[in-house]
Amino acid sequence: MDSKQQILLRSDEAKEIYLPHLSLDPVIFGFENNKLKVLMLQMNYRGKWLLPGGYVRKDEDLDDAIVRNLKERAGVSDAYLEEFGAFGKKNRSEFYYEDFDETLFYKQRFISIGYLALYNPTQTTLVKDEISTTCEWIYLDQLGNIDIAMDHREIIEKALLTLREKISIKPIGYNLLPEKFTLSELQKLYEVILGKELNRGNFYRKIKNLGILRKLDEQRRGGAHKAPDLYSFDEENYNKALESGLVNW
Amino acid sequence: MDSKQQILLRSDEAKEIYLPHLSLDPVIFGFENNKLKVLMLQMNYRGKWLLPGGYVRKDEDLDDAIVRNLKERAGVSDAYLEEFGAFGKKNRSEFYYEDFDETLFYKQRFISIGYLALYNPTQTTLVKDEISTTCEWIYLDQLGNIDIAMDHREIIEKALLTLREKISIKPIGYNLLPEKFTLSELQKLYEVILGKELNRGNFYRKIKNLGILRKLDEQRRGGAHKAPDLYSFDEENYNKALESGLVNW
Repeated sequence: MDSKQQILLRSDEAKEIYLPHLSLDPVIFGFENNKLKVLMLQMNYRGKWLLPGGYVRKDEDLDDAIVRNLKERAGVSDAYLEEFGAFGKKNRSEFYYEDFDETLFYKQRFISIGYLALYNPTQTTLVKDEISTTCEWIYLDQLGNIDIAMDHREIIEKALLTLREKISIKPIGYNLLPEKFTLSELQKLYEVILGKELNRGNFYRKIKNLGILRKLDEQRRGGAHKAPDLYSFDEENYNKALESGLVNW
Repeated sequence: MDSKQQILLRSDEAKEIYLPHLSLDPVIFGFENNKLKVLMLQMNYRGKWLLPGGYVRKDEDLDDAIVRNLKERAGVSDAYLEEFGAFGKKNRSEFYYEDFDETLFYKQRFISIGYLALYNPTQTTLVKDEISTTCEWIYLDQLGNIDIAMDHREIIEKALLTLREKISIKPIGYNLLPEKFTLSELQKLYEVILGKELNRGNFYRKIKNLGILRKLDEQRRGGAHKAPDLYSFDEENYNKALESGLVNW
């Protein structure tokens, strides 16, 4: 079966089970080699790159739909997940399936709800679904080199802005860093999200004052320099800060 | 024409012009007498209170739909407006129209996109539409005394939480306060949004450090005490802070 036939077959099924006009697009961020990356699928059909989006079943809560969607399309579970925007320009999605007629489920107008997801890329092996050639982490600084469909580049940019805002009011990193990390790795994470370099002394002082870190009795071995201390998050304080926010007026 | 007939008539028209399954619900906050209030409509049919929500036209951008909706249902224009969440539990909206059959436009499953709006209540006279008995500002501390339909109470609570988060990273008040205000009025606004009392000295120091205020050569007259200085927002710095955020890492 070629990719066009596969799409037609799935379209008929999709009409049966999903609500029309409404899609979900998760922007899944990971952090590796001191850089942010985002999870993208390349479609068989036309070869463009897309966020691993999906739809809402007629009999399913919205919150369950996005969790199922992450699992089905990218094999991702237990990510930090937060709604961050709705994307609804006319004709944002209507023209991708240019070889099909208007009866195709995927060719209708979709308003898409964007979800920000944070996920540690080392946690699992990615799976791709049958309509995708590949499911891959793409470094943010490589996004300019791939052909991204529809308005998905705009959705990624909005997600990054949201993450940048969130970092000021909520702790971040639990879902992005390995269990044990150095302060320098945590600083790098803040720097790539904020898009600027931070003063090391100020950063260490501020982050320690938040009370969300636990210093371990272990060091990172192997470098040429003095082995740096390892830290982990204090889960209780981290979750408290997630709930009540970091900023005091 | 009674309210049931009116709903049936509007339902037929709605099917023609709006996308199915998708609604918009604006939570419009105002600030008066040192208290937050929210704009609600009371429906003719069944007499329950609802947010002044609406739908997206088949030929309309989502961003335009919410602006049109605010204008049509409550006479509100030029409000500060920001998407803050999506509400999509099964059966959240399906049972309100209990006297109608399933063909009614309003009786289908709706996933609703929530918008936070900030608006100065003195700016204009409210208008109500033909399916509403009244359009009113309800003080937050009075919401417990009215019968609110569907999940609209939950939507209001999420909007308030969002506002509480935003206040830490963005300036707030331009759309909620009169043009000239005292520092004490601005402090009250922060206190009602944050839900706690703030230390006056700390607040004055912090808010002045933001650089978004302009001290006027005028005082508020009429009180028993020393006439307090009036302030207005420095529009340029305020907008800069809106864009770049208040928190420095």
